[in-house]
Amino acid sequence: MTQRRRGDLLVIGGSEKKDSDEERAILRQAARKALEEDGGRIVVLTVASMEPEPLAEIYQKAFGRLGVRQMEVLDIRNREQAYEPANVEKLAGASVLFFTGGDQLRITSQMGGSPLLERIFALHEEGAAIVGTSAGAAAMSETMLIGGPTNRSCLSTLAMAPGLGLLKGVIVDSHFTERGRFARLMGAVAQNPHNLGIGIDEDTAVLVSENDEELTVLGSGAVYVIDGRGIRFTSLSERHPERILTVHDARVHVLGRGDRYNLKERRPIVPSLERV
Amino acid sequence: MTQRRRGDLLVIGGSEKKDSDEERAILRQAARKALEEDGGRIVVLTVASMEPEPLAEIYQKAFGRLGVRQMEVLDIRNREQAYEPANVEKLAGASVLFFTGGDQLRITSQMGGSPLLERIFALHEEGAAIVGTSAGAAAMSETMLIGGPTNRSCLSTLAMAPGLGLLKGVIVDSHFTERGRFARLMGAVAQNPHNLGIGIDEDTAVLVSENDEELTVLGSGAVYVIDGRGIRFTSLSERHPERILTVHDARVHVLGRGDRYNLKERRPIVPSLERV
Repeated sequence: MTQRRRGDLLVIGGSEKKDSDEERAILRQAARKALEEDGGRIVVLTVASMEPEPLAEIYQKAFGRLGVRQMEVLDIRNREQAYEPANVEKLAGASVLFFTGGDQLRITSQMGGSPLLERIFALHEEGAAIVGTSAGAAAMSETMLIGGPTNRSCLSTLAMAPGLGLLKGVIVDSHFTERGRFARLMGAVAQNPHNLGIGIDEDTAVLVSENDEELTVLGSGAVYVIDGRGIRFTSLSERHPERILTVHDARVHVLGRGDRYNLKERRPIVPSLERV
Repeated sequence: MTQRRRGDLLVIGGSEKKDSDEERAILRQAARKALEEDGGRIVVLTVASMEPEPLAEIYQKAFGRLGVRQMEVLDIRNREQAYEPANVEKLAGASVLFFTGGDQLRITSQMGGSPLLERIFALHEEGAAIVGTSAGAAAMSETMLIGGPTNRSCLSTLAMAPGLGLLKGVIVDSHFTERGRFARLMGAVAQNPHNLGIGIDEDTAVLVSENDEELTVLGSGAVYVIDGRGIRFTSLSERHPERILTVHDARVHVLGRGDRYNLKERRPIVPSLERV
């Protein structure tokens, strides 16, 4: 008996390779469900971007080269469009919903609470894969980072906002090592160590499957997991926003391609010796 | 009864502020012993730099503004000079030995095993402070990082070399957040988790005193301590140098100005509540 189950989440750190065939592992994974299903379709959502047309074209070409035959671009420019039944209907039967990069606040501010987003959540519950890259990845958190220092250490305050909440108890950051974001993700975790920080390099992704219990790393870079539950001290205080944020006893894992992490138990899975 | 004891070590992450009076906390600490002692002298060692003259001038001016009256610049260009008795004699009575930035391999390759370096160690044992910034900081480790990715994740192999060994069991990295070096320091620690990784931001320093037992953070940035003793798995293997380095269960502390860390017990010291 096969059980209907929630679809995969694929969270991409941005700048995934689109050209060379052997390097396109991440986009191939993104397209997988559309390729496997009879009449499978990808809907590309460019809501985050201020230049949606060229971006849509890049993805249409890339998915086309991978053999995807049915694609739809849904470009939401304002909240009204997220309420239009015609737009909601464009999602019907989608196997994959792909959120491009851009500005993550555009995703949540244009679509948050709308019938369009409700339909996306419903499709996900029924098995559709949701994919986000860069801003599309950041928006998957319950609380998302929307700013913060690049290659600078972290002060006590960080720009954050409510995200889509597809990944519970997790804060995602993208372009992670390339933009020197370790300090800001550590700061975000320290604000509420209940959350797990997941920093994803460019051309790197985490695939969340098994009903959100496990993630697997894909691509050429690394994924950094910051587990704050053991934090014994932080200096966070609204009274001293100008101070460097002190954090004691964060736990950090670095994961590469093929590595897995159990989100429920919050433990990295030790690879079998054959891999090593 | 005062006991003669080893001098302080001041390890600076590079680009310490030299101009504005109130911002010069790090250089003031560097000069402290020369200012306190009767006839106190600073010797500036430019061996790491390929442009020693302008660099020497910058520090002579900066220390002069702080009130240091006796300064000597010792520029070692080759190993012969590190054996010349006249150069060794220039160190006599120095209160502070200041290693500038440049290339850390120049410090160790020109001075390693020389009478000049022996004298520096002896002066340190007798109470002279040793200060190093940037390359001068990196050289203080027993094993020093000499290369590695900037804003890229770390593969299994890293360029390292034997350092001066003034700080035992520690690997120092400088320009830490500014140059996106978290990944490489984590990689260096994973190569031998016996070592503690200390990543120091620009305009930030750690003062090691109390006979090397404790460090205190100075300056405007953060210090990252990577404690690898708890690492339960790494993927390190000479057979797969092209792979992302997997690391499970590193412990990370982030420290700001005034924060302290006990190097012997390998524990951050929780600040008293008054500070918070």
